Amino acid sequence: MGDQPAMNLEAIADFLETHFPQLDAEGKHFTVTTIGHGTATMRLDPQTRHLRPGGTVSGPTLFTLADVGCWVTILAQIGPLPMVVTTNLNINFLRLPKPEPLFCDCRILKLGKRLAVVDALIHAGETHSPVAQATATYSIPPR
Amino acid sequence: MGDQPAMNLEAIADFLETHFPQLDAEGKHFTVTTIGHGTATMRLDPQTRHLRPGGTVSGPTLFTLADVGCWVTILAQIGPLPMVVTTNLNINFLRLPKPEPLFCDCRILKLGKRLAVVDALIHAGETHSPVAQATATYSIPPR
Amino acid sequence: MGDQPAMNLEAIADFLETHFPQLDAEGKHFTVTTIGHGTATMRLDPQTRHLRPGGTVSGPTLFTLADVGCWVTILAQIGPLPMVVTTNLNINFLRLPKPEPLFCDCRILKLGKRLAVVDALIHAGETHSPVAQATATYSIPPR
Amino acid sequence: MGDQPAMNLEAIADFLETHFPQLDAEGKHFTVTTIGHGTATMRLDPQTRHLRPGGTVSGPTLFTLADVGCWVTILAQIGPLPMVVTTNLNINFLRLPKPEPLFCDCRILKLGKRLAVVDALIHAGETHSPVAQATATYSIPPR
Repeated sequence: MGDQPAMNLEAIADFLETHFPQLDAEGKHFTVTTIGHGTATMRLDPQTRHLRPGGTVSGPTLFTLADVGCWVTILAQIGPLPMVVTTNLNINFLRLPKPEPLFCDCRILKLGKRLAVVDALIHAGETHSPVAQATATYSIPPR
Repeated sequence: MGDQPAMNLEAIADFLETHFPQLDAEGKHFTVTTIGHGTATMRLDPQTRHLRPGGTVSGPTLFTLADVGCWVTILAQIGPLPMVVTTNLNINFLRLPKPEPLFCDCRILKLGKRLAVVDALIHAGETHSPVAQATATYSIPPR
Repeated sequence: MGDQPAMNLEAIADFLETHFPQLDAEGKHFTVTTIGHGTATMRLDPQTRHLRPGGTVSGPTLFTLADVGCWVTILAQIGPLPMVVTTNLNINFLRLPKPEPLFCDCRILKLGKRLAVVDALIHAGETHSPVAQATATYSIPPR
Repeated sequence: MGDQPAMNLEAIADFLETHFPQLDAEGKHFTVTTIGHGTATMRLDPQTRHLRPGGTVSGPTLFTLADVGCWVTILAQIGPLPMVVTTNLNINFLRLPKPEPLFCDCRILKLGKRLAVVDALIHAGETHSPVAQATATYSIPPR
């Protein structure tokens, strides 16, 4: 993880727009805000369609934020490989998140040749009171 | 699990339309097709916006199918309680699913007073070759 | 999963004794009882040291039963490769198991070249009332 | 998490010896080394029986370290309640750990009335290169 990231914020934004237009098909709501050495943060500005019964941000929306956030963290490090695919994702829903901007802080735990494991913490600005935590594994295709 | 389900297919469809309009906001694509004793099946007819890079059904879509399928399985059993919430969901992505109808077979492993655990197997018609497997825990509010 | 298993019960028992003597170092308590096409069952006869506060079978013991059971299920299918290693295991503890014989029914969900995913259900004889459920991923070394 | 822990290192050591003698039945190998506000670290000094084929620390041993470490982290915070039980544990095995002292750093993500969620990172002294990561949920009995 000592290497410079392979992609910067602009390259990641272009990549998502080209390869994954579904993510923001109805308006730009998912944004990568920082990229570091083995880390990245993705921000969500939730809309009505991201809510669940009770008016909080839905589980599928939080899953999307965690999964795309972790995927982007790997791609930022190793380069634009769209066929990096999730093999496992475990998510804990900790608090019901109000419909306000959410941040997903991702950190690579392992970057192997074939598998990468990334940890994600989703919060509304206060990391000591997270709304969800996820860990995900990705399969990296032969290069 | 020996009791009759509390809700039938029509009651579940009405409940989803009233309490979770976001699920099918852009057309009816998620449908509960069977309800049994502690079991239910949800069907997805995927559209372009459900796909990921490479043209297969995306992880967030499969998560949504598993999570809503398991949630509905519990509600069918205990009645229309929208504040049953997911606390944990673990999903394994096994095969890249082509954009064809997918079925999520759900089965309650435990139905306690405070927690329920449900297993889900997603397949395209052949259960011996599943595309994803999930296990989810739900918190049941005091009644 | 249509192929004949590569190892039978005797071959598996010999393999465990040779390569994993730690498992039954203090008496024979873990036993593979059946092997099928992509399936296997492991039995545990719990002793005092397998218990936790309250006198039920401990979490680490149930984890061991699930992990070794799933590992053996893969090896029975593909042959004696001790360096097949667990990369992820998710376990749900459903009921507190009394200190009586437990059975872990394992079923391969996916057997790829590099990864295998196995599902395990632990029960005391009644599969509709399981004490634990696990799903585990294994990395298969190049052959 | 702003409160003082309810138990100190000595109280935790006494509690484990009284209520969970199985843990160190064959010699003192698991030791809680630090307790903080919502955090704790448990150390393992592995012996031959903690190893798996290939001579690295086994999955069941790492699970035990994570599970007991997280459990103790909660008890240190809320007091000696042996019937706090694990409901879910997800563990990622990241690197094969050599038989050397391992440290499990635990951190409470949520401490509710009924459920607590704890994150654990196991390493051999270098936190940027962990050998395993786990997240666990515990059910807290009514008090």
